[in-house]
Amino acid sequence: MSEKMKTIMDYDTVALDEERHALAIIDQTQLPYRTEILYLTTQKEIWNAIYLLQVRGAPAIGVSAAIGIYLAAREIQADHFEEFYRQFQEAKDYLDSSRPTAVNLSWALKRQEQVVLANRERSVPEIVEALHQEALNIREEDIRVCRAIGENGLTLVKPGDGLLTHCNAGKLAAVKYGTATAPMYLGQERGYGFRIYADETRPLLQGARLTAYELQESGLDVTLLCDNMSAAAMRNGWINAVFVGCDRVAANGDTANKIGTSLVALAAKRYHIPFYVCAPTSTIDMETATGGDIHIEQRKDYEVTEMWYERRMAPEGVKVFNPAFDVTDNDLITGIVTEYGVAKAPYKEAFEEIFRKKMKE
Amino acid sequence: MSEKMKTIMDYDTVALDEERHALAIIDQTQLPYRTEILYLTTQKEIWNAIYLLQVRGAPAIGVSAAIGIYLAAREIQADHFEEFYRQFQEAKDYLDSSRPTAVNLSWALKRQEQVVLANRERSVPEIVEALHQEALNIREEDIRVCRAIGENGLTLVKPGDGLLTHCNAGKLAAVKYGTATAPMYLGQERGYGFRIYADETRPLLQGARLTAYELQESGLDVTLLCDNMSAAAMRNGWINAVFVGCDRVAANGDTANKIGTSLVALAAKRYHIPFYVCAPTSTIDMETATGGDIHIEQRKDYEVTEMWYERRMAPEGVKVFNPAFDVTDNDLITGIVTEYGVAKAPYKEAFEEIFRKKMKE
Repeated sequence: MSEKMKTIMDYDTVALDEERHALAIIDQTQLPYRTEILYLTTQKEIWNAIYLLQVRGAPAIGVSAAIGIYLAAREIQADHFEEFYRQFQEAKDYLDSSRPTAVNLSWALKRQEQVVLANRERSVPEIVEALHQEALNIREEDIRVCRAIGENGLTLVKPGDGLLTHCNAGKLAAVKYGTATAPMYLGQERGYGFRIYADETRPLLQGARLTAYELQESGLDVTLLCDNMSAAAMRNGWINAVFVGCDRVAANGDTANKIGTSLVALAAKRYHIPFYVCAPTSTIDMETATGGDIHIEQRKDYEVTEMWYERRMAPEGVKVFNPAFDVTDNDLITGIVTEYGVAKAPYKEAFEEIFRKKMKE
Repeated sequence: MSEKMKTIMDYDTVALDEERHALAIIDQTQLPYRTEILYLTTQKEIWNAIYLLQVRGAPAIGVSAAIGIYLAAREIQADHFEEFYRQFQEAKDYLDSSRPTAVNLSWALKRQEQVVLANRERSVPEIVEALHQEALNIREEDIRVCRAIGENGLTLVKPGDGLLTHCNAGKLAAVKYGTATAPMYLGQERGYGFRIYADETRPLLQGARLTAYELQESGLDVTLLCDNMSAAAMRNGWINAVFVGCDRVAANGDTANKIGTSLVALAAKRYHIPFYVCAPTSTIDMETATGGDIHIEQRKDYEVTEMWYERRMAPEGVKVFNPAFDVTDNDLITGIVTEYGVAKAPYKEAFEEIFRKKMKE
């Protein structure tokens, strides 16, 4: 390893390299084969990185877009606001087209547009500097939320515990800490000596490729297992708590997360192991009453039948069931860890209390 | 497809081709890519087929050995019994060395040796004919046991049901029908129109490669899913019963079967779906008191980390948990389907009743 080589230990998933004027990301399409840091300076490079999933995970995409639009604004040649704003909007629409359904992408770009409009009376260099600051703010907010989830999660476990997770709700999906992994990284900072168990997470193996990778690179003690092995690990007495991320939490606490999460929760219940969902308040949807109201996306057959598009692992033409998510019922969830505290049943009331706290800030 | 091409529909997994004087098997190492029937005539070919897992599954190996040793005996040039028996023993030891830990292999060869010894007063051609008959008997017994399991299993379900299975306890592990698949094939013969759901079964994907394959080739309606999706299929209301095989059943009904089986059982319990273990009485071990007494074999890391040895899917050096089996507690099992009837809790008493029936035959 060359002296100057940076690893995931030194570098967060997404950063602004102030010297190079570049968006620095870990190229996730190369994982787990090698850690390659990409320094992206042009709009086209940043667009490609999002489009090609070199950066993925809703928070990481949002932060990348916030930094990307700042870098684009830096290059704009304009004497007056109207010309600057026209070119800014062009760049914004272009970046926004890289992944049309990514909510965080549009959200971050709109937030930067508000910065431009709020500073319209100022000089172009001053507006660019405001975009620079807001990009750093958006990035810092993500780190702060994940860190607070980590702090709250850490109150639920003790040094030496075995922790199991499913899929990747790790730092590779965010900037730093991640959500389900936040208690693990914070525990590491404090010498907790956790043993981590990572479900591989079929069909796309995010647990094997990303979670096991980032934990190992960060120096944690991680063991990989297939999704059908979690009950056996629990039966062996190795697991003291489960931490998972979430895609959406309903008002009653029912949680949609990566397919297989509900099986882990069933096994945890069987073996009297607490099961925690790590959820930034932005993922708690009080408009969705229960898990039954959450639409479950079906994905393509080839994810299951063709292993990495190299070799078919199932008979030609076989029917496939490939839901992206499942719903874990609230009675299987011991607690939902947010940046404002740990919600416990009854969840609706607990969430209302948490949103009151958030409003007060 | 050529007019004469035989598929698994026409051919059982293991057969004696009387015209060719050959052991005919489906080459399982070619599945699910193509159905290739191998006609094996020499001892070396048969030894290789067992060693290379071209034929696998305890019952299928036993039947192959019984046929194989008959074919070897056919070739023996001997004027008198002593010379014949010496060469027979050479052939027997040779075949027995193809998979040293396969109990059915030794069992079938010893049974054939008993035939030789019981017929020592007869001519060599008569002894060979006795071996021929015993090979066919062993094969027929396997079919009969599986068929009886199928009949008994079929009493537990109804036409149109959705049935889920895990791993391959199918005809490809036996001669015909299999165990967990026996109710499915018998139901098909009677036009039951089952919908079958097959767990892919990581890490070796026996469900995808073998179960989905054999059911599809046989014309059943089969849907493949990843192991972490069974709860989602149950939640959708698609599954009316689960049928799995077993490696060993303890006296109290606790069952060791392919890793992941206990998670399926937990999900079935959650969704009030009956969970049945298909177990020839030969797999019920009254000497093993509970599941806690069953040793769980750990397998190699590369099964999990290297997908078919082509491309590594996890970081270098990551620790791996890879148990071959797990134990499903008896309280999660609705019934254990044997060739002598369906045992229900309390299992010890039910098994004693079943063994009394077996003794009477």
